[in-house]
Amino acid sequence: MSLKLYGYWRSSASYRVRIALNLKNLAYEYMPVHLVKDGGQQHAEQYVSLNPSELVPTFVDEDEDIILNQSLSIIEYLDEKYPDVHPLLPPHKVEKARVRALAYDTACDIQPIANLRVLNYLSEHYNVDGEGKKAWCQTWITKGFRGIEKRLQNTAGDYCFGFNVTLADIALVPQVYNAERFGVDMSAFPLIRRINDNCNELDAFKSALPEAQIDAS
Amino acid sequence: MSLKLYGYWRSSASYRVRIALNLKNLAYEYMPVHLVKDGGQQHAEQYVSLNPSELVPTFVDEDEDIILNQSLSIIEYLDEKYPDVHPLLPPHKVEKARVRALAYDTACDIQPIANLRVLNYLSEHYNVDGEGKKAWCQTWITKGFRGIEKRLQNTAGDYCFGFNVTLADIALVPQVYNAERFGVDMSAFPLIRRINDNCNELDAFKSALPEAQIDAS
Repeated sequence: MSLKLYGYWRSSASYRVRIALNLKNLAYEYMPVHLVKDGGQQHAEQYVSLNPSELVPTFVDEDEDIILNQSLSIIEYLDEKYPDVHPLLPPHKVEKARVRALAYDTACDIQPIANLRVLNYLSEHYNVDGEGKKAWCQTWITKGFRGIEKRLQNTAGDYCFGFNVTLADIALVPQVYNAERFGVDMSAFPLIRRINDNCNELDAFKSALPEAQIDAS
Repeated sequence: MSLKLYGYWRSSASYRVRIALNLKNLAYEYMPVHLVKDGGQQHAEQYVSLNPSELVPTFVDEDEDIILNQSLSIIEYLDEKYPDVHPLLPPHKVEKARVRALAYDTACDIQPIANLRVLNYLSEHYNVDGEGKKAWCQTWITKGFRGIEKRLQNTAGDYCFGFNVTLADIALVPQVYNAERFGVDMSAFPLIRRINDNCNELDAFKSALPEAQIDAS
């Protein structure tokens, strides 16, 4: 198969790319990289030669001889390569900017802070325990969702931006999955919850779920 | 003036947008939002009505009646609105994806972790002192720069991607500024240093420098 995705079932950045590949109806080979086993397979020599940042996901498109990191860059690439199958950004520059900003609200300002490697640092250097890590994740997710919920009041239909699934939904749904995992009180976020439910009724989202992956444990 | 940028001199996300506005030769009104004074002016009611995430920057384009957050979304918007003045992304989808990934390497995986609000949390909850905060920032910047430096070996000319300034440089230079502030050992990153020096010779970068802003102190 010419498309390969190196990822981890629970990584929300990997999850985003799986959703996008599904929405684009693209078959791909899923290559699990276990972020915990063996001290983290993302640090193994062979993987580092593909992705020197030692993070997942990494996407390989053999037809174009391209190896790409960064989930949002991979998704924008897929959207440019396959513009006719389920466009992931609206056509007008203002709308596009709003959708991208919503996606970055998650991908820049929530996810990287509540990330495995950051949590590991907290326990190694400051002896932060399970409860402390949970509080940490809850803090950043709640702060971020507060802003997103308010913005959605101006943009949401069935999905984050009107009535088509966009990049913003692709970023949001894996973050909600994490929020539930870390026990975030979602009662203050009715729009986020509704949009998340709507997305999770779609096959593209269902088959991208962490527990549906071959490396889920 | 129809373009307004709400920002803070030391915020690297604000710094990015200033560089982009300068490269595009756009006049704009700079509206300082002091992130420390008054308990943080980004939390003041009037600002929150513009940006419910309570973060800088916020960009206002009165002609299009648009209020936008997220520096990278603002910059892509400017690039679409003014495509003929100094394009900030290369034309081909593969090159575009590489440039975006380099920008996200900083904007997602370094900057949000080594951010003022995160550092405040560390001191409030874990009593992390000045030296501990410095070590925290050094850790994430160094990890990120290691990946970027390796990628630049395949893409760099005078700038991150060949011989034109792109979104990747706009993301990198403010991060180098921060790295120097936090005493990161830059000796392992010769390409990053060279590109940073090349960018800082350009007027668009010089006049975007934190200390050149009216709110610098």
